[in-house]
Amino acid sequence: MKTYAIGVDIGGTTVKTGIFERSGKLVDHWEISTRTENNGVNILPDISDAMMKRLNLFHINRNDIEGLGIGVPGPVDSEGTVLGCVNLGWDMFNFNIEEVMSSLTGFRVKTGNDANIAALGEYWKGGGNGFSDMIMVTLGTGIGGGVIINGHIINGFHGAAGEIGHVHVNDNETEPCGCGNKGCIEQYASATGVVRVAKRWLEAHGYEETELTRISNLSSKDIFDQAKAGDEAALSIVNEMGRLLGKTLAGIACVVAPQAFVIGGGMSKAGDILIEVIEKHFRKYAFHAHKDIQFRLAELGNLAGIYGAAKLILE
Amino acid sequence: MKTYAIGVDIGGTTVKTGIFERSGKLVDHWEISTRTENNGVNILPDISDAMMKRLNLFHINRNDIEGLGIGVPGPVDSEGTVLGCVNLGWDMFNFNIEEVMSSLTGFRVKTGNDANIAALGEYWKGGGNGFSDMIMVTLGTGIGGGVIINGHIINGFHGAAGEIGHVHVNDNETEPCGCGNKGCIEQYASATGVVRVAKRWLEAHGYEETELTRISNLSSKDIFDQAKAGDEAALSIVNEMGRLLGKTLAGIACVVAPQAFVIGGGMSKAGDILIEVIEKHFRKYAFHAHKDIQFRLAELGNLAGIYGAAKLILE
Repeated sequence: MKTYAIGVDIGGTTVKTGIFERSGKLVDHWEISTRTENNGVNILPDISDAMMKRLNLFHINRNDIEGLGIGVPGPVDSEGTVLGCVNLGWDMFNFNIEEVMSSLTGFRVKTGNDANIAALGEYWKGGGNGFSDMIMVTLGTGIGGGVIINGHIINGFHGAAGEIGHVHVNDNETEPCGCGNKGCIEQYASATGVVRVAKRWLEAHGYEETELTRISNLSSKDIFDQAKAGDEAALSIVNEMGRLLGKTLAGIACVVAPQAFVIGGGMSKAGDILIEVIEKHFRKYAFHAHKDIQFRLAELGNLAGIYGAAKLILE
Repeated sequence: MKTYAIGVDIGGTTVKTGIFERSGKLVDHWEISTRTENNGVNILPDISDAMMKRLNLFHINRNDIEGLGIGVPGPVDSEGTVLGCVNLGWDMFNFNIEEVMSSLTGFRVKTGNDANIAALGEYWKGGGNGFSDMIMVTLGTGIGGGVIINGHIINGFHGAAGEIGHVHVNDNETEPCGCGNKGCIEQYASATGVVRVAKRWLEAHGYEETELTRISNLSSKDIFDQAKAGDEAALSIVNEMGRLLGKTLAGIACVVAPQAFVIGGGMSKAGDILIEVIEKHFRKYAFHAHKDIQFRLAELGNLAGIYGAAKLILE
């Protein structure tokens, strides 16, 4: 058995890479810029070059490396073909990233969707540790997710499992979601969604009674901060966000019945107040056999992707 | 490799058993009554006795049997312990059905929840054939389900995956579902649910305009028959049932993204009209990457359980 595994998490702005021991100990990690110009033709060679320099620096022998896992911000099929990836300039063509990266580095390569891989990271060494079946819910600009069953990612048809931000929750929505549908949970419970709901609430209820009206460029952090300070309007908005998300997760539990939901993404920095409001409503809507499903905060932050990518190659 | 596998499907009224070749060819099958009296103490010995007689009758050597799969109408944990099963009189105690049945028969035994096992049967030799990832939706008195990923059952926490009848779809419901919650999809799209919706519809819209008012003891079959005959009220009711179920399945697709949904249960006898109305609404609510998910009718009827149970031991 080889000593090390490498995890790569490709984002639209930066690429994170980490060298791990098999146990999950992070030996070193670094970031490089993602050069998306010219259809992103430099991205993979840049990753390979930086990696080789770093392995030399740490005197790590290539033969001690089990392989390379890569998370990509788009759909990847089970053979490792990237099916278009707009953020990286890779939308003009499909290509097999595992083959390209393997010929650049000489390493065995496995690839997956970045949200699914972040879930695998949290399963391995983060908030999902100890649960063989878990669902990661990433509350950022949008809502992403990843489903882990028996310690493995569920990829799904077209790699599109875990797209839990697009569960429909409102028949009466008039504004479209980024996906084109109307009424997706992402429109209410993501960082941008909760601000949108707050603005609607403030319009409907008048502007006098709450601190929220005195904040310019209202953010989801402002709303959670005001809720923690006891602002009634902010508490109402957080409660409705928790109700819609708790209800959605209760429905999701009916499908795969995970042992735990792990809540991550930028909005999870709100901490316990967020977990508590989601959990409260989840328990209300949940089927009786699912009421004891656990809720945890994610623990790895933006390193979840490199952890998960390394785990992918160690499976 | 041994030639045969046996599948057993224990129901509250009868136990079905089948002898299968490894290929899935059904050699023989039979039914016995389920003796639920005295805490169901006779059920397993009765199954064993009938099985031994049948094997003798067909001159099948015990050594040619790979083992025995069993579907149970209740939760079973991953070690084969039945966690209470009211329909069989087994609610007073938990016991390991795999150990008991193995000592009664001398065969290797694997057990699972009956709805999940029926899904495995449809995956193997029914409407799900050709799809490695599929979800079975059983529209009967209630709504059951089973989730198959990479050809294996997802059992879930407390064996309660696939409980898709209890996805919440209506915040305004006043009547409770059998599970105690209010607004489960089962209350609208099961055989009893669609009749309940129809009665509400008839009360709200008056009784003159439809054949449905002239039918006593209205059944879901009556509603689908009238819809096929062009009755406007029946078509409206069927459409609303399809809208709610299609929306629910679009949400479920966001979780695991199966290749196909297989629709079974008594109500699936309505046939194409049912599939078409579910599929129409599914495509409207589905996330773009899920719009091509296939819909199929179940094909094995009430033999799905013995097929799935045999497959369970052949895995």
